[in-house]
Amino acid sequence: MNTLPPILKQIAFFFESLPGIGEKTANRLAFYLLRLPESELKKFSQAVANLKKKTKYCQVCLNLTENDRCPICQDKQRDQSIVTVVESVLDLLAFENGNIYKGVYHVLHGRIDPLNNIRPEDIYIDKLIERVNAKNSPIKEIILATNTDMEGEATAMYIKEKLKTQKSKIKITRLAYGLPIGANLEYADYGTLKKAIDGRQVY
Amino acid sequence: MNTLPPILKQIAFFFESLPGIGEKTANRLAFYLLRLPESELKKFSQAVANLKKKTKYCQVCLNLTENDRCPICQDKQRDQSIVTVVESVLDLLAFENGNIYKGVYHVLHGRIDPLNNIRPEDIYIDKLIERVNAKNSPIKEIILATNTDMEGEATAMYIKEKLKTQKSKIKITRLAYGLPIGANLEYADYGTLKKAIDGRQVY
Repeated sequence: MNTLPPILKQIAFFFESLPGIGEKTANRLAFYLLRLPESELKKFSQAVANLKKKTKYCQVCLNLTENDRCPICQDKQRDQSIVTVVESVLDLLAFENGNIYKGVYHVLHGRIDPLNNIRPEDIYIDKLIERVNAKNSPIKEIILATNTDMEGEATAMYIKEKLKTQKSKIKITRLAYGLPIGANLEYADYGTLKKAIDGRQVY
Repeated sequence: MNTLPPILKQIAFFFESLPGIGEKTANRLAFYLLRLPESELKKFSQAVANLKKKTKYCQVCLNLTENDRCPICQDKQRDQSIVTVVESVLDLLAFENGNIYKGVYHVLHGRIDPLNNIRPEDIYIDKLIERVNAKNSPIKEIILATNTDMEGEATAMYIKEKLKTQKSKIKITRLAYGLPIGANLEYADYGTLKKAIDGRQVY
């Protein structure tokens, strides 16, 4: 690496600092940039420089947006009475890309994770409670859509308990557990199989 | 994706245009940038903007450099009489990172590839011939280190024939073929096994 121009090294090091990118891939990416037209590099460079200035959290659901409210919260077609609680904007995107859901969201920006010192007050649970308790709140159902790993489950459980202590009578649901589409039973873990049996449905 | 701030989308699309990065990884990378400190993003953005201005080819070996000659060609400790011919700077780096070679290089920046319309005159073979024929050239050996796939072999063959027609009496060698270290014979392809038998050495 010492034979590389410092600026190329700098870019490769940056790529290497990103999640899931190793040294060889980082080098390959940096070299690839060299082959791009100047104009494209300039546009990308400006976007990176302005990224943080131009993005903020939606005042309602904490989705990322350039305005005060995100396009989902602004959309009159969406059902404001159902709120799906997700850990991250990437999870929100998973729903949106599938085009399978017409309600709105609440983004926690994290999950309760004591091992990594992330407590309930470090993520946006309070904001959800506030939203539920707001005067004229249209919310009738909260779908807990945190991940199904240990931290996600703990977060869902915590939010459920917290919501129960509120005076409002909101329906609280959790995403269904079971086998993913296209799954091979042979490779399914016992936990998932048990959930699939327990949650079996009339066919 | 339509719910994302345009600037985040722009960055994700750029990442997605890079080799080996799909939509999900691109999104994850773009979101990761959001979490970095402003100062780091600024430094990276400037490096990207200046990348092409600040890098050029070494006048001698066509390695990438910020100066007229690359650090390898400037290094008095390196053996200028042996020149290893590689397809790309990444290949050069593979040798340098291993710290296994003390000669110098010649970077072709490509390989002969008729299917993709890349002819001998499209890569830097002429520069190599020029370098060999230069007055007071110190070159005694050329190691052909192009890849061992079809295009790499064709390129090595072409350069060998071309060098033979020159008046100079330079030794031309090719990297050894055989089994990679740590290889499992069971998984080796027949071509490699044949090369390994043909090139067997006294033990």
